[in-house]
Amino acid sequence: MEMGKRILVLHGPNLNLTGKREPGIYGRETLEDINAEIRDCAQELGLECEIFQSNHEGALIDSLHAAVDEFDGIVINAGAYTHYSYAIRDAIAAVRLPCVEVHLSNIHAREEFRSRSVLAPVCVGQIAGFGKQSYLLAVRALKNLL
Amino acid sequence: MEMGKRILVLHGPNLNLTGKREPGIYGRETLEDINAEIRDCAQELGLECEIFQSNHEGALIDSLHAAVDEFDGIVINAGAYTHYSYAIRDAIAAVRLPCVEVHLSNIHAREEFRSRSVLAPVCVGQIAGFGKQSYLLAVRALKNLL
Amino acid sequence: MEMGKRILVLHGPNLNLTGKREPGIYGRETLEDINAEIRDCAQELGLECEIFQSNHEGALIDSLHAAVDEFDGIVINAGAYTHYSYAIRDAIAAVRLPCVEVHLSNIHAREEFRSRSVLAPVCVGQIAGFGKQSYLLAVRALKNLL
Amino acid sequence: MEMGKRILVLHGPNLNLTGKREPGIYGRETLEDINAEIRDCAQELGLECEIFQSNHEGALIDSLHAAVDEFDGIVINAGAYTHYSYAIRDAIAAVRLPCVEVHLSNIHAREEFRSRSVLAPVCVGQIAGFGKQSYLLAVRALKNLL
Amino acid sequence: MEMGKRILVLHGPNLNLTGKREPGIYGRETLEDINAEIRDCAQELGLECEIFQSNHEGALIDSLHAAVDEFDGIVINAGAYTHYSYAIRDAIAAVRLPCVEVHLSNIHAREEFRSRSVLAPVCVGQIAGFGKQSYLLAVRALKNLL
Amino acid sequence: MEMGKRILVLHGPNLNLTGKREPGIYGRETLEDINAEIRDCAQELGLECEIFQSNHEGALIDSLHAAVDEFDGIVINAGAYTHYSYAIRDAIAAVRLPCVEVHLSNIHAREEFRSRSVLAPVCVGQIAGFGKQSYLLAVRALKNLL
Amino acid sequence: MEMGKRILVLHGPNLNLTGKREPGIYGRETLEDINAEIRDCAQELGLECEIFQSNHEGALIDSLHAAVDEFDGIVINAGAYTHYSYAIRDAIAAVRLPCVEVHLSNIHAREEFRSRSVLAPVCVGQIAGFGKQSYLLAVRALKNLL
Amino acid sequence: MEMGKRILVLHGPNLNLTGKREPGIYGRETLEDINAEIRDCAQELGLECEIFQSNHEGALIDSLHAAVDEFDGIVINAGAYTHYSYAIRDAIAAVRLPCVEVHLSNIHAREEFRSRSVLAPVCVGQIAGFGKQSYLLAVRALKNLL
Amino acid sequence: MEMGKRILVLHGPNLNLTGKREPGIYGRETLEDINAEIRDCAQELGLECEIFQSNHEGALIDSLHAAVDEFDGIVINAGAYTHYSYAIRDAIAAVRLPCVEVHLSNIHAREEFRSRSVLAPVCVGQIAGFGKQSYLLAVRALKNLL
Amino acid sequence: MEMGKRILVLHGPNLNLTGKREPGIYGRETLEDINAEIRDCAQELGLECEIFQSNHEGALIDSLHAAVDEFDGIVINAGAYTHYSYAIRDAIAAVRLPCVEVHLSNIHAREEFRSRSVLAPVCVGQIAGFGKQSYLLAVRALKNLL
Amino acid sequence: MEMGKRILVLHGPNLNLTGKREPGIYGRETLEDINAEIRDCAQELGLECEIFQSNHEGALIDSLHAAVDEFDGIVINAGAYTHYSYAIRDAIAAVRLPCVEVHLSNIHAREEFRSRSVLAPVCVGQIAGFGKQSYLLAVRALKNLL
Amino acid sequence: MEMGKRILVLHGPNLNLTGKREPGIYGRETLEDINAEIRDCAQELGLECEIFQSNHEGALIDSLHAAVDEFDGIVINAGAYTHYSYAIRDAIAAVRLPCVEVHLSNIHAREEFRSRSVLAPVCVGQIAGFGKQSYLLAVRALKNLL
Repeated sequence: MEMGKRILVLHGPNLNLTGKREPGIYGRETLEDINAEIRDCAQELGLECEIFQSNHEGALIDSLHAAVDEFDGIVINAGAYTHYSYAIRDAIAAVRLPCVEVHLSNIHAREEFRSRSVLAPVCVGQIAGFGKQSYLLAVRALKNLL
Repeated sequence: MEMGKRILVLHGPNLNLTGKREPGIYGRETLEDINAEIRDCAQELGLECEIFQSNHEGALIDSLHAAVDEFDGIVINAGAYTHYSYAIRDAIAAVRLPCVEVHLSNIHAREEFRSRSVLAPVCVGQIAGFGKQSYLLAVRALKNLL
Repeated sequence: MEMGKRILVLHGPNLNLTGKREPGIYGRETLEDINAEIRDCAQELGLECEIFQSNHEGALIDSLHAAVDEFDGIVINAGAYTHYSYAIRDAIAAVRLPCVEVHLSNIHAREEFRSRSVLAPVCVGQIAGFGKQSYLLAVRALKNLL
Repeated sequence: MEMGKRILVLHGPNLNLTGKREPGIYGRETLEDINAEIRDCAQELGLECEIFQSNHEGALIDSLHAAVDEFDGIVINAGAYTHYSYAIRDAIAAVRLPCVEVHLSNIHAREEFRSRSVLAPVCVGQIAGFGKQSYLLAVRALKNLL
Repeated sequence: MEMGKRILVLHGPNLNLTGKREPGIYGRETLEDINAEIRDCAQELGLECEIFQSNHEGALIDSLHAAVDEFDGIVINAGAYTHYSYAIRDAIAAVRLPCVEVHLSNIHAREEFRSRSVLAPVCVGQIAGFGKQSYLLAVRALKNLL
Repeated sequence: MEMGKRILVLHGPNLNLTGKREPGIYGRETLEDINAEIRDCAQELGLECEIFQSNHEGALIDSLHAAVDEFDGIVINAGAYTHYSYAIRDAIAAVRLPCVEVHLSNIHAREEFRSRSVLAPVCVGQIAGFGKQSYLLAVRALKNLL
Repeated sequence: MEMGKRILVLHGPNLNLTGKREPGIYGRETLEDINAEIRDCAQELGLECEIFQSNHEGALIDSLHAAVDEFDGIVINAGAYTHYSYAIRDAIAAVRLPCVEVHLSNIHAREEFRSRSVLAPVCVGQIAGFGKQSYLLAVRALKNLL
Repeated sequence: MEMGKRILVLHGPNLNLTGKREPGIYGRETLEDINAEIRDCAQELGLECEIFQSNHEGALIDSLHAAVDEFDGIVINAGAYTHYSYAIRDAIAAVRLPCVEVHLSNIHAREEFRSRSVLAPVCVGQIAGFGKQSYLLAVRALKNLL
Repeated sequence: MEMGKRILVLHGPNLNLTGKREPGIYGRETLEDINAEIRDCAQELGLECEIFQSNHEGALIDSLHAAVDEFDGIVINAGAYTHYSYAIRDAIAAVRLPCVEVHLSNIHAREEFRSRSVLAPVCVGQIAGFGKQSYLLAVRALKNLL
Repeated sequence: MEMGKRILVLHGPNLNLTGKREPGIYGRETLEDINAEIRDCAQELGLECEIFQSNHEGALIDSLHAAVDEFDGIVINAGAYTHYSYAIRDAIAAVRLPCVEVHLSNIHAREEFRSRSVLAPVCVGQIAGFGKQSYLLAVRALKNLL
Repeated sequence: MEMGKRILVLHGPNLNLTGKREPGIYGRETLEDINAEIRDCAQELGLECEIFQSNHEGALIDSLHAAVDEFDGIVINAGAYTHYSYAIRDAIAAVRLPCVEVHLSNIHAREEFRSRSVLAPVCVGQIAGFGKQSYLLAVRALKNLL
Repeated sequence: MEMGKRILVLHGPNLNLTGKREPGIYGRETLEDINAEIRDCAQELGLECEIFQSNHEGALIDSLHAAVDEFDGIVINAGAYTHYSYAIRDAIAAVRLPCVEVHLSNIHAREEFRSRSVLAPVCVGQIAGFGKQSYLLAVRALKNLL
C-alpha cells in the first residue's frame, strides 16, 4: 500500500447547501454526510485526505496553489465554475497534480450550458451523475493513479 | 399589511461606483442616495430591508445563502456577473426565495453580451432601464409577490 | 403633479385571450380586469390613459403613428411580435415617445426565442414576469419619466 | 448482498482492437485482459456479468433490446457511436434499465467532436478518462444503483 | 383500381419495441398490431404490401436496393436514422421510387435534433405526429401517387 | 359516426393564388378546386367544415380565436407565416383545439428557411408534400383524433 | 417609346412617416414630396404609375396580387418587412412581374439585421442608399427592363 | 450644371471578361461596350469620367489612393473582392470621396457568400442586378450626390 | 518493383448501385466494370488487390480490422459514411495502414454536408471528382507510398 | 494519343519556397525539382505543358484569363488563396476549361480553415495529400478528361 | 520629465506561480523577478509604480476602484479573467484611467478561447507574447501616454 | 551589443495614407514621420533597419521571401490583410524569422472583424493600440528577441 499518499478534495460554489437544495437532482445528504463518507473511503484505501469548500473562485485557486507541495492528487467538484472558470483551469494546469473532475448530477443530461466543462481538458478524467458516489469513485480512481 | 416581511437588496460589482461612472448611462446619484430611496420605499410599503454590496462573486453567493432563513424575498442587481455567473444563478435557485432581477440601464439596448442574463431563468421577473427607479419598482413588485 | 399627461397602453396579439389562456403562465384575470386596474393606477398617478388591443401588426403600427401628437408616453406589450416585428420597432423609433416594454411572463425564463426582444433597443426599459403587475409597474415607471 | 443481480457490459466499435491501438491514449491491455478484470470485479461485488462487443450499430441495438428481461443494469462504451448514434440513444431510453456510460480516455480533453455524447441524456452517469479502471468504476457505480 | 401495385413499408431502429416503449409518446399498440392495420389498409386500397423492420442501417439500405424491381413505392419510418443517415438518404435517392417519410410522433415538436430529417430532401412528403395513423395516411398518400 | 363534429380549415398568405403560381411546385388546381375536394372529403367523413383564407396574419389570428367555441379541430396551412409567425403559434396554443399543420409542397426539401416551422411545436402533427392531398389526409387525420 | 406601360410603386411600414422620422438617415422630404417626384419621373419616362402605402403586411400582399393583370412592373420598398416577410416574398414570386427592391438608406451599412433582404432572391435588383433618388433610379431601371 | 466634376469608375477582377463569361448572369456586352455607354452617360450628365480595370487588389487600392485629388466621386464594381477585401474597404474609407457600389447581377439572389459586401458600410449606396444599367444608374446617382 | 505489396479497396454504402444511379453525377459504368479496371491497374503496378463492398458500417469496420496483417495499404470510398462515421474514422486510425480516401464525384462542389469528411484527418490524402479514375489515381498514389 | 493538347500548371503563393519550408509537411524537393517531374510526366502522356508561379492573386487571375485560347486544361495549386480567393474562383469559372485542384498536403487533415476550398465548386476534382505526386496524379487525371 | 506620475501594475490569477508553471509558455523567471524588472524600468522612466497580485476577481476590481485617485495609469495582466470577466471590464471602464493590457504569451496563437479579450474594448492597447518584456513594453507605452 | 543585426519593417495596405486618413483613429503623423522615428529608434538600439510599404498582398509576400537571408527579424503591420491573408501567414511561417505583429489602433476595440488576426498564430507577439509607438515598442521587442 502506498502509505502517506495525500489527496485534496475541493468543493466549489453552492455545494455547502447540498442536501438542502433541489434534492431531486442532488440527493438529500448534506455535505457533512458526504465528507464523512469520503474520509472513510480514503482511509479504507490508505489515503490521507483533506477537504475544503468555498463559494469564492479565488479561494479555490489559492487552495489549488497551496496544494502543490502538500498533496499527491486532487478531486474537484467546481460546481458552476466548471462551466466558465478558465482561471481555475489554469490553476489545475499549473499545479501539475493528477486531478479528477466530479459532479453529483449527470451534467451531460441537463441544461446545454452544463454539458461543457472548461476544466476537463486539464483533468485526468470525469465522473458525473452518481450523487455522493461520484466522489467515492473519484477517490478510488485517484488511488489507482497514484 | 404583511408586517415583518423582510427583503434583501443585493448590489453586485462596480455598483459602489454608481454616480461616479458613465453618468450618461447610469445617472448621477451615488449608491448611497439610491439606497436611501430604496429604504424609504421599502418602509413606505411596510417591508424591512437590508442592503449589501460586493464586487466579489463569492461574497454575493455567501450572502444569498445567508438569506435563506432571514429574508422573504430578494432584489438583485448582479452587475456584469448577470451575464456569466452560473454560480450566482445556482445560489438563487438553491435559496428558493422569490428573486427580482434589476438593472439600472436597459441591458437589452446595449452591447450584445449584456442582453443575455444567466440569472433570468431562476428569477421571478426582470426590470431594466429605469435607473434607480428600477430598484424601487422591484421592491414594489416584490411587495406584491410576498 | 403633471396634469394632463396622457399615455397609450398597447396590447398585441393574443392578449385579448388573457385569463382564458395558459393560466399557469399568464394568470386568470381577463384583459378587461387588467385594463380596469391599469386605468385605476393611471388615474391615481394623475395620468390620462387610453388602451388599445389588436392582433394585427399593421394596426399596432397605425396606432403608434397616431399617438405622436396625442400622447406623452407609451406602454407596450407586443406579445409574440416582440420577437420579430422590426416594423413595430421602426414605428416606436419613429414616434420618438418614451416607450416601456412590458411582458406578463418572464420572457427570459421561457423558450429560447422569447428571450430576444427586437423592440428593446428602441424602448426606455423592460418589465417582465409580474403578470398584470408588469403593466402597473410600467405605468408608474412612465409617470416617473414624464 | 443482492444475489443474482445481472449486468450487461457493451463494447462498441473498434474496442476489440484495444491494446493494439494508440496505446498512448487507450493503454496497452487488450480487451480480453480488460474483460477478465471486469468479470473479477463484478464477481467480487456479487454481480453476474455478461460482456458483448460489436462494431455494428444495429447489433448493439439488438443487444440492448435483448437485455430488457435479462439484465438489471448496463455498462456501455459505445466508442465513436457515442457522438452520433441517436439510434443507440433511443434503444437505451427504450429499455429503461439504469445505464452507465464509460470511456477509456477523457473524451472531454480530446477533439471537439468527442466531447459531445448523444447518449449521455439517457444515461445515469458518465465515467471517462481512467482507462480500464473506467469500466471497473462503472461496475461499482452500477452495483450501487441496483 | 391499379391492380398489382406493390409497396414496401420499412421500419427502422427501435420500432420493434413500439408499444413497450414510452407509450406517452408512441402509443400502446405493438408493431405487430400496427402492421396488421397497415396490411388491412393497403388491401382495402388495392395495394400489395410488404413490411420489414431492422435495427441495422446497412440492412435497411440493402432492403431499399432490393426494392428497385419489386415495388412501386415506399413508406419509411427510419427512426433515429432519420436524423443522420446520409447513407439511407443516398439509397432512397438511388432507387428512384416515390418514398413517403413517416413518424409516429411529431418530430418537429420534440428535441431540436429530431426536427431535422436528412431523408426529407429525397422523399415525396412527410407525415408526422399521428401515431399508427401516420402509416395509414402514408399508404393512402402513396396510393394516390402511384 | 361522430355527427356534428366541426372543423375549420385555414389557408394563409398567397394560397388564394394556388393554381396560378409556380405550378411545378404547387400543382395546377385552384384553391376553389381544392376547397371543393376538402368539403367533399369532410362530408364523406361526417364532418362539418368551414374554410377561410387570408393574407393577413392578424386576420388568421382573429379567426383562430373565433374558432374556440365553434369548432372541434383545425387544419392550417399558414403559408410563409409558418416560418416566423410566433403570433399565430401563440394563437394555436391558446385555443387549445387539435390542430393539423399542412403544406402543399415538401417544405423539408426546399430552401433552408422553409424547413423550420414555428407552428409545429403546438400542432398535433404535420403533413407536407402531397399537394391538395395534404389537406385531404389532414382532414382524415383530424377525423381520427376527434 | 413603350406607351401604356404601367408600374406599381409600393411603400411598406412606417414610410408614411418619412420626413418626420430620423431625418439624419431618411432625409427631410415627406412621402408626398417623394411621390410627386416619382410621378414626374415616371411621366417623363412615359410610364403610368400608381402608388400605394400600407403598414399592413397583408395589405401589401393583397396589393401585389391585385397587380397581376394591372401592371407591368413593380417598385417596392417593403420597409422593415424586407428583413422577415417571407409572405411578401412569396407574393412577389407568385405575381411574376419584374420587381425592383428599393431602400432610402444603405441597409448594408446599418444594423446587422438590416443587411439581409428576404425579398432579394425574387427581385430583379436592389437600389439602396440614395434617399428619394433610390425610387427615381428604380423607376428608370424598371423602364429599361420593360 | 456642375462643370468639371470628375468621376472614377473602377472595375475589379474578371470584369475584363464580361460578355465572354456566363452570359446568362452577366449579359453579352463586353466591358468595352459598357465603358462606351458609361462615358456617353457621364458626358450627357456633364461629368468627366475615367475608367480603370484591374484583377489586382493592390492595383485597385493604388488607384483609389490616386483618386483623392483627381476625382469628386467613385463608382466601383469590385467583383469578388466585394466579399472579402477589407483592404479595399479601408482604401475607400480613407479617400473620403462619395462612392457608389455597383454589381451587374443581383448579388443578394445568388450564392450565400455573394450577398455580403464588406465594402457596403463605407459606400453611399448599392445598385445591383441591372446588368450594364447598374453602372449607368450609379453614374446618375453620383451626379446627384455631387 | 515491390513484389507482393497488397492493397485493400473498400466501397461503402450504395456504391453497389453505381452505374444505375444518378449517372449524371456518378457515370454509367457499374461497380463490376470499375472493379475490373482497378484490378488491371493494380496488376500493372505490381500490386495485389482485394475489393470489398458493403452497405453496413459495421462490416466496413470489421473489414478494416481484418486488413491489419493482410494488407499494406487501403483505398476507401466510404460513400455517405464519409460525412458522419467517426467509427470508421477510428478504425482507420487504429489499423495504422496508409489509407487513401476516394470519391467518384467532387464532394466539395455538391451539397454543403458532402464537403466535410470526418475520415480525412486520418487518411494520407483525398482524391475526388474523377469518376472511376479517382480509384485508379488512388491505387497509383498508394503504390507510390508503399 | 491526343497530340498537341496543352495544359497550364499554376502554382500560387509561397510555393516558390517549397523544399525550403516546413519540410515535415511539404517535403524536401524544390519547386524546380517538382516542375521537372511535372514536365516529364506531361511529356510521357503526350501533353504540352506550361508552368507559372506567382505570389500575386491578380497575376494568377491574369494568367487564367490568358489561358483561354492557349490551353485545354488547368492544374492549379492556389496555395492559401484556395481558402478565400473568390476572385480566382470567378476566373476559373469564367475561362471554362477543365481545372484540377491540387494540394501538396492533405488540407482536410490540418487547421480547420484549410479544409474549406472556395475553388472546389468550380473545379472538376481535387487531389490533396500526396506531395509532388499530387501534381503528377492531377496531370494524369487531366489527360484523361481531355 | 513628468515627475510623480504613478502607475499601478495588476497581476491576475495564477500569475503568482509564474516561473514554476509551464515554463515552455511563460518562461522561467518568477513573478518576483519580473516585478523587480518592472520597478527598475518604471524608475528609469521616472514613474512611481505599485504592484498587486490576486487570484480573486473581486479583489482585482476593488483594487481598480481604489486606483482612481491614486494612480495615473494602469498595466493589467488579468490572466484567464481576460476571457470572461465583464466585471473587471466594467471596473476598468469606470475608473477612466488609461489602461494597457498585457499578456506573457501570445494569446492569439494558443487555444481559441484565449484569443478573445473582453477587456480589450476598454483598454488603450494590448501587448502580448514577449514574456516579461510584455510588462516592460507596457510600462514604456503607458509612460508615453501620460 | 549585437552589431549588424538587421530588421525589416513592413507596412501593408493603406498605411501610405497614414496621417491623412481618419486621424481620430490613426493619429496625424504621416508614414514618413513614423518611418523616421522607427529608423532613429532602431539606430539607437544598434539595429540596421529597412522599411517597405505596399498595398499589394503579393508584393508583401515577395518581400517576406526576400527577407530570408537578409534580415534577422521582422516587424509587420499588414493592415487589413491581417484579417484574411492566409497567404501572408504562410509566408511568415515559411521564412522562419521572428516576426512581431503591429497595429496603430487597438484592433480588439473596433469592429468585430478587426479583432481576428490570421497572422497571430505565426508571430511571436502582437502590439496594438499605441499609434506610432506600437512600431517603436515592436522594434524594442524584436531587439530583445535577437
